[in-house]
Amino acid sequence: MGEFELIRTYFKPLADRANRDQLPLGPGDDCAIQRLEPGHDLAFSVDTLVEGVHFPVGYEPEKLGWRALAVAVSDLAAMGAEPACFTLALTLPDADAGWLAGFASGLSRAGQAFGIALAGGDTTRGPLTISVQVHGLVARSAEIRRSGARSGDFVCVSGTLGAAGAALDYLPEPAPGPDQLAVLSRYHFPEPRLALGQSLVGLASAAIDISDGLLADLTHLLEASGVGADIDVEKVPLMPELVVLKGDDARRLALTSGDDYELCVTMAPKIYEALCEDVRRELTVIGVITPEPGLRLAGCVPDAAPGYDHFGRLA
Amino acid sequence: MGEFELIRTYFKPLADRANRDQLPLGPGDDCAIQRLEPGHDLAFSVDTLVEGVHFPVGYEPEKLGWRALAVAVSDLAAMGAEPACFTLALTLPDADAGWLAGFASGLSRAGQAFGIALAGGDTTRGPLTISVQVHGLVARSAEIRRSGARSGDFVCVSGTLGAAGAALDYLPEPAPGPDQLAVLSRYHFPEPRLALGQSLVGLASAAIDISDGLLADLTHLLEASGVGADIDVEKVPLMPELVVLKGDDARRLALTSGDDYELCVTMAPKIYEALCEDVRRELTVIGVITPEPGLRLAGCVPDAAPGYDHFGRLA
Repeated sequence: MGEFELIRTYFKPLADRANRDQLPLGPGDDCAIQRLEPGHDLAFSVDTLVEGVHFPVGYEPEKLGWRALAVAVSDLAAMGAEPACFTLALTLPDADAGWLAGFASGLSRAGQAFGIALAGGDTTRGPLTISVQVHGLVARSAEIRRSGARSGDFVCVSGTLGAAGAALDYLPEPAPGPDQLAVLSRYHFPEPRLALGQSLVGLASAAIDISDGLLADLTHLLEASGVGADIDVEKVPLMPELVVLKGDDARRLALTSGDDYELCVTMAPKIYEALCEDVRRELTVIGVITPEPGLRLAGCVPDAAPGYDHFGRLA
Repeated sequence: MGEFELIRTYFKPLADRANRDQLPLGPGDDCAIQRLEPGHDLAFSVDTLVEGVHFPVGYEPEKLGWRALAVAVSDLAAMGAEPACFTLALTLPDADAGWLAGFASGLSRAGQAFGIALAGGDTTRGPLTISVQVHGLVARSAEIRRSGARSGDFVCVSGTLGAAGAALDYLPEPAPGPDQLAVLSRYHFPEPRLALGQSLVGLASAAIDISDGLLADLTHLLEASGVGADIDVEKVPLMPELVVLKGDDARRLALTSGDDYELCVTMAPKIYEALCEDVRRELTVIGVITPEPGLRLAGCVPDAAPGYDHFGRLA
């Protein structure tokens, strides 16, 4: 089987899953065609993973397939968008059938879990690099932006933080124990908070997904909103397995390490109090928005340097 | 200036150009937001260029910026779509200010020429790789697909073919002559046939852009349409400078070399005859669609092997 045929074979099932009312034309033409329901806007975001930078050399292709899609879909979760379709720009050193089968399998499982179909892409030869662009639907003007936080709003995070960052220490582990496995799973199989994000449309004043670390991402949100925040670092939720493994260092990881793909959201206290129990229990209040710019940390603050310069979003 | 700030500075002007009715939210949030006019669908396509594969190592960044956008926009031209916005997934070994300024300048000039604004992207560290996803607008169900060619339709091409392929021989030339410069310009600064593509909506039965070579791309169109074609290779239009430089080999290049980004379109003869003069003079009839599958070449056929296996569009 030629390379072209090989790629077609492995990726076709991911495209066949599409809703033809939303995606009248999928892969195989010069462009794909997407149709929006009336009253909806398109939310879209692209994320690139580079071998040796965003994942280890020789990383398992099935895990890579899941991660590549999850990382991108997390941006839809942060806007409250409903996933629709994605494109895949895949640069590969060669078309190894075993690798492609594993990668497509991880991508397919993630696509099924997140309700998103392959719309098209481009496959090229070169150093292993994966760019995924996700498309989602939002009711017109209803998307949750980073810029809406207002003084007095609660700052909340979903789930627990720090585990994916700790997992980097255990990736080379030949026989990880149960705590290590729990932490590793957060790195290998991030689960974007799609349902939570969508349930917060019209309720949260601002949101961002936590990809670079809580302090870094919250800072982006504060700057976009022109406000500051007081955060009680002892309220930041930690996975019990992370505390077992890392002790006092767990809190530093929860504040500064990335790859968790939880949400950081702000909302008026009255709205928080009125949330239905199902939604509220997914969130932990860790602080409050202030009119003064800047991020102030209270509680037992670990020695850490959250500020770092990095490549990131354009313009 | 930090890397993050550097990138923001160079790319911001490309985003500021956006029409805010169509792109209510550009770069800087988790997602960008695009709004479609009623009665329109979204056409989108992604193309990746890898250093050392799709362009030479050390290629001038300004030319690369133009090419990266032009190559992607050409897919919008082939569907008859009107450009709206694009995303840029840029993987760079380092953030060199001179390189970034050149790349952004080429990208900006192309964006202005094609009427398309930067909507967002991701910048990462790694081997130089550029993925551009373009978004365009088409009237609902009016896009020109590859699959609509019917027996008896004329096969037409725009412009002239083969020059970009010949240009590869002159890239290392320190002091290219005028004929070489003419041919090189077709490689460095491809001009997607946007106006032509849009003017053929409702008239052409099928279209594809010529990126891999006429015979390869026409074969894709024929297969998608379930038809064949008889082509008179002597009718394939050649640039005079290409004939001067390459003599008898010019025809082989016009049939098999890529990177021209002209359009190959099919249409009923009666529609072709009824085209306004401005549109018709951009097209050359080179053959006719047949019910029998396959591509048959008449005239003085050069020795060449058009069939090759390559990475390409996803299933």
